[in-house]
Amino acid sequence: MADCQGDGVEGATPMELYEKLTAQGEKVRSLKTAKADKAEVDAAIQLLLKLKVDYKGATSQDYKAGCPPSESAVLSNNGQSGNGAEEDTVDPWNVATNSAKGVDYDKLIVRFGSSKVDQELVDRIEKVSGQKAHRFLRRGIFFSHRDMHQVLDAYEKQKSFYLYTGRGPSSQAMHVGHLIPFIFTKWLQDMFDIPLVVQLTDDEKYLWKDLTLEDCHRFAVENAKDIIACGFDVNKTFIFSDLDYMGSSPEFYRNVVKIQKHVTFNQVKGIFGFSDSDCIGKISFPAIQAAPSFSSSFPQIFKGRKDVQCLIPCAIDQDPYFRMTRDVAPRIGYLKPALLHSTFFPALQGAQTKMSASDANSSIFLTDTPKQIKNKVNKHAFSGGKDTIEEHRELGGNPDIDVSFMYLTFFMEDDEQLEKIRQDYASGALLTGELKKMLIETLQPMITAHQENRKNVTDEQVKQFMTPRPLKFNF
Amino acid sequence: MADCQGDGVEGATPMELYEKLTAQGEKVRSLKTAKADKAEVDAAIQLLLKLKVDYKGATSQDYKAGCPPSESAVLSNNGQSGNGAEEDTVDPWNVATNSAKGVDYDKLIVRFGSSKVDQELVDRIEKVSGQKAHRFLRRGIFFSHRDMHQVLDAYEKQKSFYLYTGRGPSSQAMHVGHLIPFIFTKWLQDMFDIPLVVQLTDDEKYLWKDLTLEDCHRFAVENAKDIIACGFDVNKTFIFSDLDYMGSSPEFYRNVVKIQKHVTFNQVKGIFGFSDSDCIGKISFPAIQAAPSFSSSFPQIFKGRKDVQCLIPCAIDQDPYFRMTRDVAPRIGYLKPALLHSTFFPALQGAQTKMSASDANSSIFLTDTPKQIKNKVNKHAFSGGKDTIEEHRELGGNPDIDVSFMYLTFFMEDDEQLEKIRQDYASGALLTGELKKMLIETLQPMITAHQENRKNVTDEQVKQFMTPRPLKFNF
Repeated sequence: MADCQGDGVEGATPMELYEKLTAQGEKVRSLKTAKADKAEVDAAIQLLLKLKVDYKGATSQDYKAGCPPSESAVLSNNGQSGNGAEEDTVDPWNVATNSAKGVDYDKLIVRFGSSKVDQELVDRIEKVSGQKAHRFLRRGIFFSHRDMHQVLDAYEKQKSFYLYTGRGPSSQAMHVGHLIPFIFTKWLQDMFDIPLVVQLTDDEKYLWKDLTLEDCHRFAVENAKDIIACGFDVNKTFIFSDLDYMGSSPEFYRNVVKIQKHVTFNQVKGIFGFSDSDCIGKISFPAIQAAPSFSSSFPQIFKGRKDVQCLIPCAIDQDPYFRMTRDVAPRIGYLKPALLHSTFFPALQGAQTKMSASDANSSIFLTDTPKQIKNKVNKHAFSGGKDTIEEHRELGGNPDIDVSFMYLTFFMEDDEQLEKIRQDYASGALLTGELKKMLIETLQPMITAHQENRKNVTDEQVKQFMTPRPLKFNF
Repeated sequence: MADCQGDGVEGATPMELYEKLTAQGEKVRSLKTAKADKAEVDAAIQLLLKLKVDYKGATSQDYKAGCPPSESAVLSNNGQSGNGAEEDTVDPWNVATNSAKGVDYDKLIVRFGSSKVDQELVDRIEKVSGQKAHRFLRRGIFFSHRDMHQVLDAYEKQKSFYLYTGRGPSSQAMHVGHLIPFIFTKWLQDMFDIPLVVQLTDDEKYLWKDLTLEDCHRFAVENAKDIIACGFDVNKTFIFSDLDYMGSSPEFYRNVVKIQKHVTFNQVKGIFGFSDSDCIGKISFPAIQAAPSFSSSFPQIFKGRKDVQCLIPCAIDQDPYFRMTRDVAPRIGYLKPALLHSTFFPALQGAQTKMSASDANSSIFLTDTPKQIKNKVNKHAFSGGKDTIEEHRELGGNPDIDVSFMYLTFFMEDDEQLEKIRQDYASGALLTGELKKMLIETLQPMITAHQENRKNVTDEQVKQFMTPRPLKFNF
């Protein structure tokens, strides 16, 4: 999956504008009916007109009561309207915000037109799976979704689904943030007992970065080892490099071509911000990230079935790819993939940006020694504490901007313990140094265990995971 | 290969303008040195200035003495300069001319910046191959080339090459014109004893036409039978459908991605006339037609060697693809393919357009019965004869615009007989009906033999030709 440069997605979604407009139209009518004060009616009409202009700007269509905008109108809503300067930037290549708390995810849900993972959905997942929800769900780390209720409805009727996630192998080094989708996907796989496909977009990294094909492919294989070390079931998991799988599956290429026929340059320009000076490889790549969303791309797994629903757990910055995919799906006779979106894992320096694989001090790498982990956390983890111990004791720290506390929300399993830490830090009872120590003691055994698992991954196992083959599952 | 819609390529090539400019600069200098009449000097300077403006228009660069334009300047010379309205249109999707004699091929050589197949080259091919040149060479049907002397230089030093040609399978029906590149390629294969790869661009046809993937693939297999019926050596020939081969050769896809990284949307816009509303599949397709020009796309044949030169016999309308390929090749460490370009096979109705597979009366199909051939030639073949026999006897016919005569230049082997027909027709000794009879008698056994050969092509043979496998050759 992608992580280079591009433009931001800004402004209200066409659907949001449409709903505002409909509500405003009703308001004007009711004010008129009620023979309200003229100034009040005029003000309401002014706002209605302004909303109509915004709507046309966002959709290139006139507003018509009763006709909501099409999904393709949502698709082209990229950086063309709205109050851009104030908004967070979130797309496959850029994540940027001015807030120390990180991106405003509630706003993002509205902008992207997705749905919030609310308590009702979390409860329902617990009910259907019969297990306590994963801490990533309990704590709002997977905070947004598309069509999860539909997936669960079907599952309850014995209609199963499969999982698809991925990674862009731009270097050999993975950091703890890269594990988030895999930790969660492993949990989903165990919960629902379903197949998983993992795409390593080595072709994309070649197209975007100054790397050779050989390097990108080598990074894909190295990254596969870290993914396998997360504990995936080899009987239920297929990991593939695009450079390998495109050349070994005519069905995959056929789906890529189908998607490529149904997406124009105008659309990818709108969604991803491509320009005329971009290479034709970048321009056509989104179809390659879209194709694994369709079960017919994996005939060895699904025996040619094209009706197995796909669920994609991924970071929210990948959503533009799948908005495009969902727009194309019905036009080529396929099911739209469902999605579960995660927040970003913050850099040690603070939640304003995503971590960078190229800056060793911006994150904890999966290859770091216990000593390196200790030094990095102590030296670089942005603190929400006060300048002096006295001040901290008196006023308390701010866990909402404290990176050590944020990391603990990702990796500490015990909800009560975490809540006590939050309260103690906020009250000043817990000092920054003590908080950092807790994080260090959580990360060190976790990373050591990962390294141990990775060391035990044999070349033979990698080959097995990466060989197109039937998987074992019951549906 | 392509045959749908697009824009024309127009105007003098940057290289031609450069040479004119250089010559004109010298003329101005010599006039000044000779202290020529002021009016003459001024006129020469005027022309020089005009040429400089044309040059900048065509290349976006200022003219500099001693610095010829780069090949990429040639690449972007599409429909932006020159006296467009008067020019023939020749690109992968359109061929159109106002002249009954057909496209002006000498002008095309200048515009495309290729080289003429002159007597010297024909003599050299005879010398190197030790055989009489094919009638297509003797008669200027393969009239243009790129780097043929380089190919022959290497061949004389025991450094061999391979052949690549193709077809866009837009329907089951092929007409006699479609055989031209295959008849000639078969001759080259026999002459030089070298491997051949034949690309069937079923993916392209799906992207351009209102057809299903399944139809396009089926047409590819049907067309393969007609190609095999031309007599290719199964031990030296690999025929492939893109939809199949892309999904069975990681090396082919790797070359496609390499090319896609090195060509921008601006470039394909300039070369092929794509627009923002074209689908991303069309935009990236040229890389797929380019990839077979590189021997590393066929590791099963060339054992990973990337230094085997490619020679592409094709109709001149396919040249834009290979100008692009030749521009990219050195940047990805590959050899530029050499080319041999043919003229177009005229429609029965006249040489103004290419034949159309969708109009049954525009050509002789490979499935036509002897009776259909007779009726079509008699009824539809455009005649260069006079309105009455008396007038014809007196004034003679015009073989240059007579389609029956043109067809004979393609298919009658005997040079002397053909020349006699030309003279007799021009003198009026030979009537149109008699000329048509000769064509009918040439085509009927040829098509019957083709049908016989095609009927004998077994599914097993098709499978063999279309299976990626080693080929037999000596280099």
